[in-house]
Amino acid sequence: MARPRDFIEEDVLQKAICVFWRKGYKGTSMQDLVDGLGISRSSMYDTFTDKHTLYVKALETYQKKSNQQLCDIFENAPSAKAAIKQLFELTINDILNDGEHKGCFLVNTEIEVSHKEDVKDLVSQSVSILENAFYQTILRGQENGEIGERHDALALSRLMSNIIKGLQVSAKTITDKTYFDGIIKATLAILD
Amino acid sequence: MARPRDFIEEDVLQKAICVFWRKGYKGTSMQDLVDGLGISRSSMYDTFTDKHTLYVKALETYQKKSNQQLCDIFENAPSAKAAIKQLFELTINDILNDGEHKGCFLVNTEIEVSHKEDVKDLVSQSVSILENAFYQTILRGQENGEIGERHDALALSRLMSNIIKGLQVSAKTITDKTYFDGIIKATLAILD
Repeated sequence: MARPRDFIEEDVLQKAICVFWRKGYKGTSMQDLVDGLGISRSSMYDTFTDKHTLYVKALETYQKKSNQQLCDIFENAPSAKAAIKQLFELTINDILNDGEHKGCFLVNTEIEVSHKEDVKDLVSQSVSILENAFYQTILRGQENGEIGERHDALALSRLMSNIIKGLQVSAKTITDKTYFDGIIKATLAILD
Repeated sequence: MARPRDFIEEDVLQKAICVFWRKGYKGTSMQDLVDGLGISRSSMYDTFTDKHTLYVKALETYQKKSNQQLCDIFENAPSAKAAIKQLFELTINDILNDGEHKGCFLVNTEIEVSHKEDVKDLVSQSVSILENAFYQTILRGQENGEIGERHDALALSRLMSNIIKGLQVSAKTITDKTYFDGIIKATLAILD
């Protein structure tokens, strides 16, 4: 009979997210994972097979949380514009509150690991979910007159998602809140 | 007397850009550099000290070329809007013509290596040059009525630079030209 696990997989995956986010895919060694996860090397191999499989599981866990956050914002905001404003403000707050300047785990992954097909599929899935959330919200805003119709809703939703990605790159080197506030203001003005 | 070098430093740096761009900072080993640069390991150490120093020199070389390209566009385009359009189109063409989907060497560096102060400084310098080119062009366009005044010129120039960064992230996973064309069209409409 296999020995029961003495750890909770969900907790270990949260720790794996931290290690991979901080050190990147290539920069994370098995020893970094042993040190960071607090489980034995053999438990790690038994449960997660190898570094790549663990990375994919960590990424899936991160995505679930981030999609949930997205749903909460887009379903509960009082208006289309308010939802978009909240998402940008949350993004900037997360950026500025992270003293380690890790950026966004998903954007870092898109840059570093999208040559791996399974990772690329996960990233594309997340991008689609974000762009679809923008699209539905922009359509709703255009229908009720809250958002102008100068822009095509699909192109605008893709533009918004690319601005978010750009901000998350800038977060690696810029810590000045006024820099990001100015960009958000200009972004929201596009919706008028 | 030191033995004269049997290679041209500029050529070796071009090859170093290719290796680092393809494999990333952490993913590039000294053996990858020996294989990719076509010079001996001892010549590499004698001339470039270590991997980090070589990365910085390669990045500087890449920046010089990319700043020159930027100057050419912004100085020679027939109008402010045409300059901005050309820069976006060049970015997308470069993205779509790269079968390896390497993205932008500078954006990849901003994500992966900006915890190193010397690299961060170089990245910040490049971002400033890009944003200043946008700023001067947008100001000029606003003065002559070509670009609308709904947006603050500084915030708009930063927004443009963040859109470029976003597109260069998306280039890692998206190859559909219509996706990027739609975003460019929406971006240029912001300037009306």
